[in-house]
Amino acid sequence: MYIPDYYEFCCRVNMVAGHNALEKIPEHLLSMNAKNPMILTDKGVRAAGIVDIVIEAIENKLTIKTIEDEVPPDSDLKVVNQLAGVYREKGCDAIIAVGGGSVLDTAKGINILVSEQADDLMQFTGAGALKRKLNPLIAVPTTAGTGSEVTIAAVIADHENNRKMIFGSYFLLPDVAIIDPRMTLTLPPHITAATAMDAMAHAVEAFVMLSKNPLSDAHALEAIRLICRHLPRVIKDPSDREGRLGLATAATMAGIAFSNSTVGMVHTLGHSVGSVCHVPHGTCMAIFLPYGLEYNFHKIEDKIAELLLPLAGEEIYVSTPQKDRARKAIACIRTLNQRLNQATNGAHAICFKEIKDREGNPLVPKTMLDKIAKTALGDGTIFYNPEEMDYQDCLMTIQAAWEGIPLENKTD
Amino acid sequence: MYIPDYYEFCCRVNMVAGHNALEKIPEHLLSMNAKNPMILTDKGVRAAGIVDIVIEAIENKLTIKTIEDEVPPDSDLKVVNQLAGVYREKGCDAIIAVGGGSVLDTAKGINILVSEQADDLMQFTGAGALKRKLNPLIAVPTTAGTGSEVTIAAVIADHENNRKMIFGSYFLLPDVAIIDPRMTLTLPPHITAATAMDAMAHAVEAFVMLSKNPLSDAHALEAIRLICRHLPRVIKDPSDREGRLGLATAATMAGIAFSNSTVGMVHTLGHSVGSVCHVPHGTCMAIFLPYGLEYNFHKIEDKIAELLLPLAGEEIYVSTPQKDRARKAIACIRTLNQRLNQATNGAHAICFKEIKDREGNPLVPKTMLDKIAKTALGDGTIFYNPEEMDYQDCLMTIQAAWEGIPLENKTD
Repeated sequence: MYIPDYYEFCCRVNMVAGHNALEKIPEHLLSMNAKNPMILTDKGVRAAGIVDIVIEAIENKLTIKTIEDEVPPDSDLKVVNQLAGVYREKGCDAIIAVGGGSVLDTAKGINILVSEQADDLMQFTGAGALKRKLNPLIAVPTTAGTGSEVTIAAVIADHENNRKMIFGSYFLLPDVAIIDPRMTLTLPPHITAATAMDAMAHAVEAFVMLSKNPLSDAHALEAIRLICRHLPRVIKDPSDREGRLGLATAATMAGIAFSNSTVGMVHTLGHSVGSVCHVPHGTCMAIFLPYGLEYNFHKIEDKIAELLLPLAGEEIYVSTPQKDRARKAIACIRTLNQRLNQATNGAHAICFKEIKDREGNPLVPKTMLDKIAKTALGDGTIFYNPEEMDYQDCLMTIQAAWEGIPLENKTD
Repeated sequence: MYIPDYYEFCCRVNMVAGHNALEKIPEHLLSMNAKNPMILTDKGVRAAGIVDIVIEAIENKLTIKTIEDEVPPDSDLKVVNQLAGVYREKGCDAIIAVGGGSVLDTAKGINILVSEQADDLMQFTGAGALKRKLNPLIAVPTTAGTGSEVTIAAVIADHENNRKMIFGSYFLLPDVAIIDPRMTLTLPPHITAATAMDAMAHAVEAFVMLSKNPLSDAHALEAIRLICRHLPRVIKDPSDREGRLGLATAATMAGIAFSNSTVGMVHTLGHSVGSVCHVPHGTCMAIFLPYGLEYNFHKIEDKIAELLLPLAGEEIYVSTPQKDRARKAIACIRTLNQRLNQATNGAHAICFKEIKDREGNPLVPKTMLDKIAKTALGDGTIFYNPEEMDYQDCLMTIQAAWEGIPLENKTD
């Protein structure tokens, strides 16, 4: 066990998980003296019929004051301000956020304004700006991936002033996270694969970082185990409810793991490809994960070796000599990606050069790799990576991931 | 994975762990706008010099208003009332509870009175009676065992009216739990062994109960792993700080596990022996643990089998045929008890008939087994045990544990 000199671990969210978890929302809101929620979602989630399932589960015990589905893919200050007005007008006393990261970030922003009776979000940025509990907030994640239901951060874009406002406080944590397999049952296989690999990247990076601790480790290892057990069966049968619950549970546990440890270069590079070329985040995570482990190999071989246990199971772990375990763990992740690629008829990409936009043009043209590498250098996660990265290191790794060729360990 | 139809998991305590965790107390209290704490402890902890370590770590950043060490081994309403008065008189704004379960329960009782500005604790018993956050409370456990720093309950005895008041609320959770190896460095080996086996019993029972879930499992398995790794080295070298930190971490994780699952007959019988014959709780847990698993064997063999992995490690787990794993897991616990018995020159008892009081008389006379069995039937934990237990079942198990003879599985 690696024991740092001192660490903190906290997850204040009450997790309610199971095949009927949604039905527990009224009980929790009522216990917080709230019964007039706003449901916040986006148009895609609503069109998929997912909000209807939530409504059916709760409407006879709560007065849903309004259902707002105008949340854009990127959170936006104007939307937050406008929806805070709606919350007040309609007399809401809680938010049920049904969606992914942007919906939840928007909900957090609205909740700051309505709880603090404020008009200007800007005054609440930075650590320590929030001093007390906000109004009740229930998070209902609709992808099993981001883990944002258990993270203390919110990012809200102020497009008018071309800036991003970053909020971080335990008070931003939802009161309750609902982990219900009905929310992900209709996700197509390639999105299921990408979001599960997003959770996998959270768990794996949390486990290999210096800032890990025994509590984040326990969450990370169990998350990896759950993903390896349940992802193949869900890809085969997307309606497998137990598998869906397993993946959703894993995503939340991986969220707890990384938010009590850190993430590193897999996220650094993934954020950059996402921002420059609009590749979905989960796809970036899936592709970069083995490269991130290879790049840091000489610094974290012992930790990568431990990952073979949840990735491959006890039999393979024990029959693999200690000195080969780390390489085998990385190979397991590549094999998982390849199987997901085959099972989705290529829709789960394993290198960037394969990815096409709707017109069939490359989404990540080779000419953009230089810009991606430069952008990566400005991502905050780069500082937590076990091994330092300069422009050349970023470019080399991105080129390898673009081609789909394992990275030679050049930093040994 | 066993997935129940629905479960909840919550641990709101901020855990601060490490070799310098105590030094983080001021930062946390100040962030809650408190700087005038009462230190609450008992005479034994104070005499051992442990409170001095706490004071030294915090006194230059906080104004310690008073140090109260009058907490009796069993919490008591009169003491709670009296100390709530002291808290008010001295102008305290927080409690730092340094001790075991009784100190923490007393702290919780005081905190209800002073936060709610009330005189009568009775009105706050029962679920849902507390509606809002109480004043800041920091828990500093001084044994690595009970896990009470992460449990939502408090039991306070009203000796005058011969009743026990039971409180249960998330608001009773300490804000921060400090896991610092300096708090347990001076525990003698046999107490270290008993308290570690208390934590082991929490983790093992949490893992085999019906109410388990993937999150409680992750905590339970990691706790067991940590105890198996660190207990032998701490018994050998009580000043091993890394081992002490590992055991303290395990105790907290085991506390999180059982408070989000349940405990069963090991606790049922242990509570009874403790209350009838005043055997230390950890000793009861150590002795009863293998018997509890044997008694429930036919109902939970698959879960016990999984415990072999953290108990014995990957090599032994894989080389043991599936059908033998559960029995081997129980044997591992017996072997651990025997090793602890040898390493402590018999001070860590492995059956009740061995235990003597200070005069050398049996602490658990054979004539008391009948009363112990009857008392067990009234313990609340009996309802959670996987297999039902009547008087004869209790008596049979207690007799076996008294003799130290493995229980034959009579319920197959």
